[in-house]
Amino acid sequence: MKSQITNALSDFFFEYETPRQVLVRNRRVGVVCRLIQLGVLAYIIGWVFIYEKGYQSSDTAVSSVFSKMKGVGYTNVTGTERIWDVADYVFPPQGDSSFVVMTNYIITEGQKMGNCPELPGKHNCSSDADCEGGSFKRTGHGQMTGKCVNTTKTCEVLAWCPVEDDNNIPDPPLLMSAENYTLFIKNSVTFPLFEVTRSNLVEGIDNNYISKCLYDQEDSPLCPIFKLGDIVKMSGFNFETIAKVGGAIGIVIDWTCNLDFNVKHCKPMYNFHGLYGNPDEKDKARASVGYNFRFAKHYMEDKVQQRTLLKVFGIRIDIIVQSLARKFDIIPTLTAIGSGVGIFGVATVVCDLVLLYLLPKREFYKNMKFKYTDTQTQVKHSL
Amino acid sequence: MKSQITNALSDFFFEYETPRQVLVRNRRVGVVCRLIQLGVLAYIIGWVFIYEKGYQSSDTAVSSVFSKMKGVGYTNVTGTERIWDVADYVFPPQGDSSFVVMTNYIITEGQKMGNCPELPGKHNCSSDADCEGGSFKRTGHGQMTGKCVNTTKTCEVLAWCPVEDDNNIPDPPLLMSAENYTLFIKNSVTFPLFEVTRSNLVEGIDNNYISKCLYDQEDSPLCPIFKLGDIVKMSGFNFETIAKVGGAIGIVIDWTCNLDFNVKHCKPMYNFHGLYGNPDEKDKARASVGYNFRFAKHYMEDKVQQRTLLKVFGIRIDIIVQSLARKFDIIPTLTAIGSGVGIFGVATVVCDLVLLYLLPKREFYKNMKFKYTDTQTQVKHSL
Amino acid sequence: MKSQITNALSDFFFEYETPRQVLVRNRRVGVVCRLIQLGVLAYIIGWVFIYEKGYQSSDTAVSSVFSKMKGVGYTNVTGTERIWDVADYVFPPQGDSSFVVMTNYIITEGQKMGNCPELPGKHNCSSDADCEGGSFKRTGHGQMTGKCVNTTKTCEVLAWCPVEDDNNIPDPPLLMSAENYTLFIKNSVTFPLFEVTRSNLVEGIDNNYISKCLYDQEDSPLCPIFKLGDIVKMSGFNFETIAKVGGAIGIVIDWTCNLDFNVKHCKPMYNFHGLYGNPDEKDKARASVGYNFRFAKHYMEDKVQQRTLLKVFGIRIDIIVQSLARKFDIIPTLTAIGSGVGIFGVATVVCDLVLLYLLPKREFYKNMKFKYTDTQTQVKHSL
Repeated sequence: MKSQITNALSDFFFEYETPRQVLVRNRRVGVVCRLIQLGVLAYIIGWVFIYEKGYQSSDTAVSSVFSKMKGVGYTNVTGTERIWDVADYVFPPQGDSSFVVMTNYIITEGQKMGNCPELPGKHNCSSDADCEGGSFKRTGHGQMTGKCVNTTKTCEVLAWCPVEDDNNIPDPPLLMSAENYTLFIKNSVTFPLFEVTRSNLVEGIDNNYISKCLYDQEDSPLCPIFKLGDIVKMSGFNFETIAKVGGAIGIVIDWTCNLDFNVKHCKPMYNFHGLYGNPDEKDKARASVGYNFRFAKHYMEDKVQQRTLLKVFGIRIDIIVQSLARKFDIIPTLTAIGSGVGIFGVATVVCDLVLLYLLPKREFYKNMKFKYTDTQTQVKHSL
Repeated sequence: MKSQITNALSDFFFEYETPRQVLVRNRRVGVVCRLIQLGVLAYIIGWVFIYEKGYQSSDTAVSSVFSKMKGVGYTNVTGTERIWDVADYVFPPQGDSSFVVMTNYIITEGQKMGNCPELPGKHNCSSDADCEGGSFKRTGHGQMTGKCVNTTKTCEVLAWCPVEDDNNIPDPPLLMSAENYTLFIKNSVTFPLFEVTRSNLVEGIDNNYISKCLYDQEDSPLCPIFKLGDIVKMSGFNFETIAKVGGAIGIVIDWTCNLDFNVKHCKPMYNFHGLYGNPDEKDKARASVGYNFRFAKHYMEDKVQQRTLLKVFGIRIDIIVQSLARKFDIIPTLTAIGSGVGIFGVATVVCDLVLLYLLPKREFYKNMKFKYTDTQTQVKHSL
Repeated sequence: MKSQITNALSDFFFEYETPRQVLVRNRRVGVVCRLIQLGVLAYIIGWVFIYEKGYQSSDTAVSSVFSKMKGVGYTNVTGTERIWDVADYVFPPQGDSSFVVMTNYIITEGQKMGNCPELPGKHNCSSDADCEGGSFKRTGHGQMTGKCVNTTKTCEVLAWCPVEDDNNIPDPPLLMSAENYTLFIKNSVTFPLFEVTRSNLVEGIDNNYISKCLYDQEDSPLCPIFKLGDIVKMSGFNFETIAKVGGAIGIVIDWTCNLDFNVKHCKPMYNFHGLYGNPDEKDKARASVGYNFRFAKHYMEDKVQQRTLLKVFGIRIDIIVQSLARKFDIIPTLTAIGSGVGIFGVATVVCDLVLLYLLPKREFYKNMKFKYTDTQTQVKHSL
């Protein structure tokens, strides 16, 4: 028994099988097949290895974004001058990656809880019977009291009074000065697999540089300070249009890094594109143009709760981080080679088809390639 | 030398090697092997190509979501009527993809900075010795002054006074009318690889349709306006329960697009599922049911800072975009074919095992397949 | 015709081709080749199957995070005692996955819209000619009126007056008590492919446990309650430094689950790392240390709009969910086997190179392996 195992093992280890092959000496077949094989080889090396970098493993980053607006806005509405600073025009205030910069607004001051008529057009009536008490309208401002107000011919509602009239959007937008605001982006990315952490304040971007620079696609593509007007222009909007009705812009920070080189070359790229609200994308955005929301500031006056309601039109900015780092790794290298050998097999199959079915001397090659075992007959005999 | 290279090159180009094969004529082996090969072929074509669409490359989207609630709520607490509009019940106000709709609240009005006793039960005491001055309790409302208040038998604290008493959650919830609020979702996705941008306001969803439609899984699955009550129901909650203690719901917008067809067929699918706070998931959520947070409105009265504290119970809605677009690409096609050829090789290995080890005539086949080189002996001789 | 097809079919089904092979009996070649093949086999089984778990398909989760801070802060600024509770120090209040905990602040009370001189240093002037009326400075507080104020030697601006003076950051930070705040994280993940939903309140984490536990990497790694001081320490910051100027910390919740085992073993892991503002990362963060934003509370006094401006320094916490679930799946198993067979082919190629080009008896093996078809001459003859 033991010797049997030893024999089997030594047979296994001292033997080696390799396929027997026919070497076909034929110019046409040879050239065709070699060209196919060279094509496949070029594809594997050129595409899989060089272009797709199949010898590298890849990782996406865990990222964190902090934004900070700077600049002051100025409005002069019927003689009342007012300054708008960062605490007034950015929502939310804490420097998120997604925020809104107010560029236009409709203000309704001194709202109190009470009964007042709805806006003309919202819920018209001719008599009290048209205003069912206690009921709501989805797009209305409050709960109907059941009365029809004669002067406006609309139902009376329990609401924050007076109700907001948002039919006329200020044009030109009140805060056209928003064009000169600047946005500072601080972004840090960590590729956990490669244990590399990078900040968009790369080498050379120090306090001194930041205090003076302004992003420009050509001249200073690494400056993390952006003029709002430039962002709007680069994303394909017209500033006055977007400032009036609002819109949304995506700032994509693209980290595509080849970590086989020095980590210094791992730098961010900034791209800008309109998300919606662009009046050019006619059929897509037609249904709902602009970006707005309502925001209230509450206060007490004479022991009565009051509020100032703002319908804010603004530019919503979404800062999106896209990241892909690559580095040499033995595993994907071997996998790419293995997969390449598989594709190489396809070339052989194609050449065999040519050899065995298309050439005039195909019968001759068939005989060379195949050896027949007529065991069928033999089996019959032996039965 | 030169002629040698020319010879080697011409040898290389005019020759072609192909494996020699044995053609075994045996019904059993033939049928078994052909079935295995056909199975593998069916698997490759059926699964890899048709089901998994291995001939396509895929991409996920960069997306942006904007949400807008509509509707008014009405409360009548001990005779005081009040209307709640969007600026009052949505947190944060600016239309983020994640927000909270208030459905219930505990209000503590007129809080001022001062000294007052803690809530009964929070920090009981019998004498001043039980209340260490200057120390905190993690779940308490303020800093202890060192006094024990006789009337309540609790420690006195420096805090916003009077302290909030949140032992009794209003039941039924104060804002049951939230069931009729509507949510409008605007979502835009961009697949950077294929340069395709889509909005959830697809072809046919125009202003006219939006002004009238309401989402329904069967009848209007593309309407971007959702009734809050429907969202709650579709995610498996009971509205009254979730409105009382709060809860979290995920709205998944699913963009699964085959861009080999017209881009018009790339449409969103809306799914709803409860995230936590669902009392049905007993053992999982038992530890911490509901969703609430505290929110303060500050004001000045008689030169003194005061605030109104709201403990807000609400439905938190997370709008999550899942996206996967696919399009024909030559690279994954070739890779899938190459990998298929590799799997095909497995079939040959299995058949060879049958042929060489299981068949009665295995020795005969072995002789056909293998040619022995007894070089071992020869090598010995030649030594 | 019909019989031809039948014949072809029966030929196809009753025949089976298998490559003919040479069995080389040579110790050296045998041992070398077998070792290479065993190495490849060990790699495929050990790496692809056991280490990389190539027999499983994987999925990432859809997740939702809810955070809740607890604890009270205390400040005593020039004799005025004040308590800060959750509604005062968390921005935004609604329990998002990204929020800021205020640890230090510069307060400017009673700001009104009006004319006042700029801060010394911001825009110095010697005469009115230095202050162009109607113009802005990007880093200034308002719009210049054209006057130069003699007492401060700075330009007068229309702004929220008095303007904020943020030159001196309070040191030590005013809210050092923030160290004792606690953070409660509720996190739910859903793996849509495997239809598994998990919460970070796993089995055994019930109300009773939560009311007493505190996260500790060693002793209670599943407790979802974290002390802010611990979070700061674990992410490599010094609390006093970060509390003074602010900073950003990422809490990564890592769900790496093997769903071939019981779902009970699918548990979260918490990791902490500093995102920016860490003064240790000298060259990277040097350009912009800290984290701060401005926040205003508006109120009316004597019918005049006023505001309290807070420059908030704080710890921004980003809760990031990383997830990867794996489960046995027949498709990736077959694909891994197929790819393994492909890599196996590489071993054969290497051995053949040794056999045909390196061995002394290479000519002999060449003759055994290859059969020459001198069809070139034959073709010539037959032409």
